[in-house]
Amino acid sequence: MNIADVDTPAVLIDLDRVEANLKRTQDYADAHGVRLRPHIKTHKLPRFAKRQIELGAIGITVQKLGEAEVMADAGIADIFLPYNILGASKLARLQALNERVTIRVTADSAETVAGLSEAFAGAEKPLEVLVECDTGMGRCGVQSPQAAVELAKVIAGSPGLSFAGLMTYPAAGKYAEAARWLAEGKRLLEEAGLPAKIISNGGTPDLWHAHEAEVATEHRPGTYIYMDRYQVEKGVATLDDCALTVIATVVSRPTETRAVIDAGSKALTSDTLGLTGFGHVLGYPGAVITSLSEEHGTIDLSASDKKPKIGEKLRIVPNHCCVVSNLFDVVNLTQGEAVVETVPVAARGRVD
Amino acid sequence: MNIADVDTPAVLIDLDRVEANLKRTQDYADAHGVRLRPHIKTHKLPRFAKRQIELGAIGITVQKLGEAEVMADAGIADIFLPYNILGASKLARLQALNERVTIRVTADSAETVAGLSEAFAGAEKPLEVLVECDTGMGRCGVQSPQAAVELAKVIAGSPGLSFAGLMTYPAAGKYAEAARWLAEGKRLLEEAGLPAKIISNGGTPDLWHAHEAEVATEHRPGTYIYMDRYQVEKGVATLDDCALTVIATVVSRPTETRAVIDAGSKALTSDTLGLTGFGHVLGYPGAVITSLSEEHGTIDLSASDKKPKIGEKLRIVPNHCCVVSNLFDVVNLTQGEAVVETVPVAARGRVD
Repeated sequence: MNIADVDTPAVLIDLDRVEANLKRTQDYADAHGVRLRPHIKTHKLPRFAKRQIELGAIGITVQKLGEAEVMADAGIADIFLPYNILGASKLARLQALNERVTIRVTADSAETVAGLSEAFAGAEKPLEVLVECDTGMGRCGVQSPQAAVELAKVIAGSPGLSFAGLMTYPAAGKYAEAARWLAEGKRLLEEAGLPAKIISNGGTPDLWHAHEAEVATEHRPGTYIYMDRYQVEKGVATLDDCALTVIATVVSRPTETRAVIDAGSKALTSDTLGLTGFGHVLGYPGAVITSLSEEHGTIDLSASDKKPKIGEKLRIVPNHCCVVSNLFDVVNLTQGEAVVETVPVAARGRVD
Repeated sequence: MNIADVDTPAVLIDLDRVEANLKRTQDYADAHGVRLRPHIKTHKLPRFAKRQIELGAIGITVQKLGEAEVMADAGIADIFLPYNILGASKLARLQALNERVTIRVTADSAETVAGLSEAFAGAEKPLEVLVECDTGMGRCGVQSPQAAVELAKVIAGSPGLSFAGLMTYPAAGKYAEAARWLAEGKRLLEEAGLPAKIISNGGTPDLWHAHEAEVATEHRPGTYIYMDRYQVEKGVATLDDCALTVIATVVSRPTETRAVIDAGSKALTSDTLGLTGFGHVLGYPGAVITSLSEEHGTIDLSASDKKPKIGEKLRIVPNHCCVVSNLFDVVNLTQGEAVVETVPVAARGRVD
């Protein structure tokens, strides 16, 4: 099948660009002595997780137990789940994972640590726990390096648990600040006799600066495999690096300056990540996707000399590719103009 | 199982509220001689579509061929698909549907009509086509009542097709304007000897004004079955009418005024529909869900005297319930505090 024959809306994944993105990043990491632990939330596909490891990644990152289970089933042996795992059901799943793979989690409170310890107190293999650090993101995490040390002590003193280090997701524009935070945490941990084995850092926005945070022992980019409009806008990638596109059909041309496509928020997501518009229409640089309803995307063509026709298929680089992966049951793997395989998104919809 | 035992994040559907919402709306419709054709994109569940029809709905509305197929498989016999259907693959699926149920579609261009006619020219049963009208929404639709008549003539003159009427989705605050537009279209169609059998109107935002658009022969509310924060903000419903909630766990309390829950954009959606915040936290009226990443929701508690604890489960009325239905493989049907059944969302993820 050719790309032109794909029923719309659908996701296309350019395999050559995937490989180029993975290699370029691994080469950069190797050249700088940076260890990669890619976040698979972006692709949710065991085959790409395996390829990342083949190329040199030290393991993977997941965001949900369900994602970890899919990846463990596929043979991935080293998984980091940077999340506070709470509640009997989730703790039982975590125990089962810990028995068959290397899995590490994070905690940012004594409450989370107490729950983990209760679940793992009798386990043969202790659970490795990192302290999540809020270095400026304003989401989860202890609020200071001192607080990190205090929680590390609680972990180290809890039956069934082993303190493994620090983890952060740096806020946009605060990468250097995050590194200083982590360095101070590392120093205080050493003083306290609890050296951090792992200091886990960053994502794709800071990818090419990973080596500047010398304190980190690993970096966790996710989006880099596909790239997207947000990363292009931030200068991390070019449009030609973007491996994931949504293919859509122009279903209406109600006016001279308006086109409507059959990809709405169910295909492109409402995520703007602060950008204007809901994606980049390839070949129509002046076109702006001004609004999405669930099954319609409305495009303003006022600034586009070229106007697409009804029935024409457009390819769109979404603002945020990770979220798109979660919206489609299958993705189409392409090489050149050919669809070489249509595969289920194995870890899609793993909400818990 | 009790609601308190549901693993999070998850969707809870209060069956008593569903029934009350359906009955209240059908009673209103019956009292005013309004015919309902509910949009099932909100629930995507055959059982609720059947209940809507049992209570008096004249058929259902869907937005995708895939949704129509799921509903036809479940025995729903009268389906409206207000969309421009284009391309060989989709037209073949539409033909198959037309052979087994009553299905109608819309068109807003001669191109769409030409494609439909080519597919249905040899069919035993002509396809009924309505003209989609842009009465102010700025999405699909012909731009004037005169243009509607011109397209109606094209449909009526096309082999395999039968002109069935007009359809619109009125823009917010333009309900009366839309009714005037449709009335003018109706008049011009009668003058042209092409009376509109069906004039299909509106959604949930205009639900309680449906009877004011006397020109309409049917109304297509979707959200009314569950209601959501947007409809509450618009005065269409109260919080006590909201049947769909997302249950989430507080996984972090990094600061005195911040809570983080395990429901992010993968559970609550990034849809704001113009509202501030990403949902209403029941029992915490001062709490504001200020940001979502995929697996985290960040709540500002500055204006909330009550502060939830780590491990506490919160129930959230999302901004836009239809989109939430599409994010979960299953939903939990509840009565009081009991989960009575967990069911797959049959028409979830039908992107084409």
